[in-house]
Amino acid sequence: MTSDNGISYGDDSPIAAFSTAVGNGALSLIRCSGKGSIELISSVFTPQKIKEASGNTIIHGWIINGGEKIDEVLVSVFRSPKSYTGEDSVDISCHGGFTTGRAVLNTLKSAGFRDALPGEFTFRAFMNGKLDLTKSESVMELVSAKTEAGRRHALTRLSGSLLEEINEIKKLLVKVLVGAEIYLDYSEDEISAANDEEISGRLPEKESALLVLERLRKLSASWKLERLYQEGATVVIAGSPNTGKSSLFNCLLKEDRSIVAETPGTTRDWIEAWISIKGIPVRLVDTAGLRETGDTAEKIGIERSRSLIDEADLVLYLLNGDCYPQNSVKNLFVWSKSDITPPPPDNKLNPVCVSAKTGEGIPELVELISGVISRQVQQNTYVSVSVGTERQKKLVDAACSYMEEALALSDNEQPLDLIAPLLREAVNALGEITGEISTSDILEEMFSRFCVGK
Amino acid sequence: MTSDNGISYGDDSPIAAFSTAVGNGALSLIRCSGKGSIELISSVFTPQKIKEASGNTIIHGWIINGGEKIDEVLVSVFRSPKSYTGEDSVDISCHGGFTTGRAVLNTLKSAGFRDALPGEFTFRAFMNGKLDLTKSESVMELVSAKTEAGRRHALTRLSGSLLEEINEIKKLLVKVLVGAEIYLDYSEDEISAANDEEISGRLPEKESALLVLERLRKLSASWKLERLYQEGATVVIAGSPNTGKSSLFNCLLKEDRSIVAETPGTTRDWIEAWISIKGIPVRLVDTAGLRETGDTAEKIGIERSRSLIDEADLVLYLLNGDCYPQNSVKNLFVWSKSDITPPPPDNKLNPVCVSAKTGEGIPELVELISGVISRQVQQNTYVSVSVGTERQKKLVDAACSYMEEALALSDNEQPLDLIAPLLREAVNALGEITGEISTSDILEEMFSRFCVGK
Repeated sequence: MTSDNGISYGDDSPIAAFSTAVGNGALSLIRCSGKGSIELISSVFTPQKIKEASGNTIIHGWIINGGEKIDEVLVSVFRSPKSYTGEDSVDISCHGGFTTGRAVLNTLKSAGFRDALPGEFTFRAFMNGKLDLTKSESVMELVSAKTEAGRRHALTRLSGSLLEEINEIKKLLVKVLVGAEIYLDYSEDEISAANDEEISGRLPEKESALLVLERLRKLSASWKLERLYQEGATVVIAGSPNTGKSSLFNCLLKEDRSIVAETPGTTRDWIEAWISIKGIPVRLVDTAGLRETGDTAEKIGIERSRSLIDEADLVLYLLNGDCYPQNSVKNLFVWSKSDITPPPPDNKLNPVCVSAKTGEGIPELVELISGVISRQVQQNTYVSVSVGTERQKKLVDAACSYMEEALALSDNEQPLDLIAPLLREAVNALGEITGEISTSDILEEMFSRFCVGK
Repeated sequence: MTSDNGISYGDDSPIAAFSTAVGNGALSLIRCSGKGSIELISSVFTPQKIKEASGNTIIHGWIINGGEKIDEVLVSVFRSPKSYTGEDSVDISCHGGFTTGRAVLNTLKSAGFRDALPGEFTFRAFMNGKLDLTKSESVMELVSAKTEAGRRHALTRLSGSLLEEINEIKKLLVKVLVGAEIYLDYSEDEISAANDEEISGRLPEKESALLVLERLRKLSASWKLERLYQEGATVVIAGSPNTGKSSLFNCLLKEDRSIVAETPGTTRDWIEAWISIKGIPVRLVDTAGLRETGDTAEKIGIERSRSLIDEADLVLYLLNGDCYPQNSVKNLFVWSKSDITPPPPDNKLNPVCVSAKTGEGIPELVELISGVISRQVQQNTYVSVSVGTERQKKLVDAACSYMEEALALSDNEQPLDLIAPLLREAVNALGEITGEISTSDILEEMFSRFCVGK
């Protein structure tokens, strides 16, 4: 497995990278791992006793480069196999800000470390048997969780909920497979005439096969809601100029501040922020007012508004007295100035009445938004164990297909030697989910999506 | 010492805060400190052995809240007095991203920790004798260092260079003071007529007093350059539209990428980024083109450009053939399209010729920029030890004034009992720099400028 620059992903050479976000923090953490990493650190660290340090201990000292002090640090020493990666590892806690951390990282590189590739620490943890693939993936889900609900779901997978469910399903499935293969191992004339029926068709463990299929289908269905918790929904505020779009935007922001605006995407044309609505991350977008205009800059703004509306999951369409937009399943009509004047009585769109100024109607609007969004993913499919990635979902679906085909053949009384290979494929698909069965291509594809430092 | 919300700054109650930047990192670090903090953590952590953990050891486990797992973490245990604050402390390394870290922090708060105030950890370190004030302040300088040079200067102070210099000066000064006070301790008739001269005027240790003054003056002069390394200079790129401003901006950015654009201040009207020019942080600003216009939005842009030019330390003024701006000490004239056409031969402004396309002339321009900026602060005053904050500089200046007054009195043969109190004031000013002498007002003012988590 090799990256673009020819560095192999699969070796155990010493690697280092920032594990914490770069920014205005008091501290930064640099993670180092790989063969000989503790000895390498000792060449740029004082006091020297680090070489004899036991695992899971912390030493205070200085990173030095050719006699020059680079930073005063705390060094956490981990001895193989008791570390995140399973290798000898060192976490360096240095002073925050980018400049100091970079100076430390440069010193480490001059000592023989190379930059870690994205996901390389977790890749090594997987290769060394510290994590299966479902847990590896949940680490990344946890890092990017946008809401409490997202975090909670990822954590149950990190705790092994999905791994256990997959393993239980696989155990059942293997029982079915073994049941089928026992018959194949005997030559036809060894089996009594009484059993003829079973050889040609009818799975010996059909009950279990049906149970396997049911549990797989539940897992597959869990992805819709799970993805919503991970990726969120886009809610666009639109309408004519001066209908109170920005006031409503700010009011909803205040209503729930539990997500920090990640990239304060302030541009010429729209403003957006992430908020959490009943645990669902919502990308709330305030657009330029929609109206006919000759001004070129404004025209561009309005065009962008229209394309944002196109990609939205839900549009909060603000009305004023004289504008009647087309009804659409994506539109939730809002009358935003109910403190000043009520909506015109003949308004057929039956808008939700709110006042951004007094806050009146806002909780009801939030309730409506969450209702619309979660209806879109059929919230009633919620199960306690769920898949956490597209990859897992696809493999569950593959296993489902094999099971459905196997059961159909069985119902049509086809011979077991046609059915058994399908069951074996289903077992393999489940093995791929946990990483028991994996190819280097799949692993590379998976781990390279991680962030650097993880 | 009490903050706005009535929480005392000076107690030893358990506090907690993010120590790393909030953002897209793989890990976040939460620092906890205070009386009983290890016991408090044990109420929301499993395994329980944390209570018996030795100092400087790391335990792997889970943060739990009423039975629910919140995050899988590494916990570093520090036992008083061997910790940053000198108190019992715990660093929790949790999964990155805001959501998970916040869930852990909320759990800690439900267990009895309160949010740390800005600078509160370092305040405690100072109160517990782990750092003097010059080192405390250097921690903050290190965190916010923008360039390698800035980091290096801050680190020498963290290593104690300023503390040592101040202590040496103070020792000399105390010798002068003691010399003067010895005479004051004797009644006039006890001292022989031969010494009359020395009692009325003439410091007994005048040589030392002069040396003290010289060293103080050097320290005071060091601030100008030091501030430049910390705060940097603003360089604005200006000129008519289509003179190649943005190309030059991008070209200079490529020339030195050693500072990451901290706040990518992309707005309607200007773009800015921090670059490092010979170790000096330079805030490089690309402005809207200057021209007469009727368009309102463009007018606002040009107004902003003018106010940016007003606050600039240096303006890179890009010329085209038909524009002759007023000369100004702040202007460095640039002809930016030397690959296409040479500057008009009659151009009296003698511009630097560069090509953003081929890179020709760019190193020379960088050299010129650094020359102009550092001339502004008289680089030749550079000394190996320098003050790092405005506060330190003011106290050094105060000590200087007392010394000058004392020496003037001595030269005018004024009695020593007028001189000695001035020397004592100078000693006190130096004591304030290191924090040997301090009032709670000063400390509050100082530490509250720190970031939270430090």
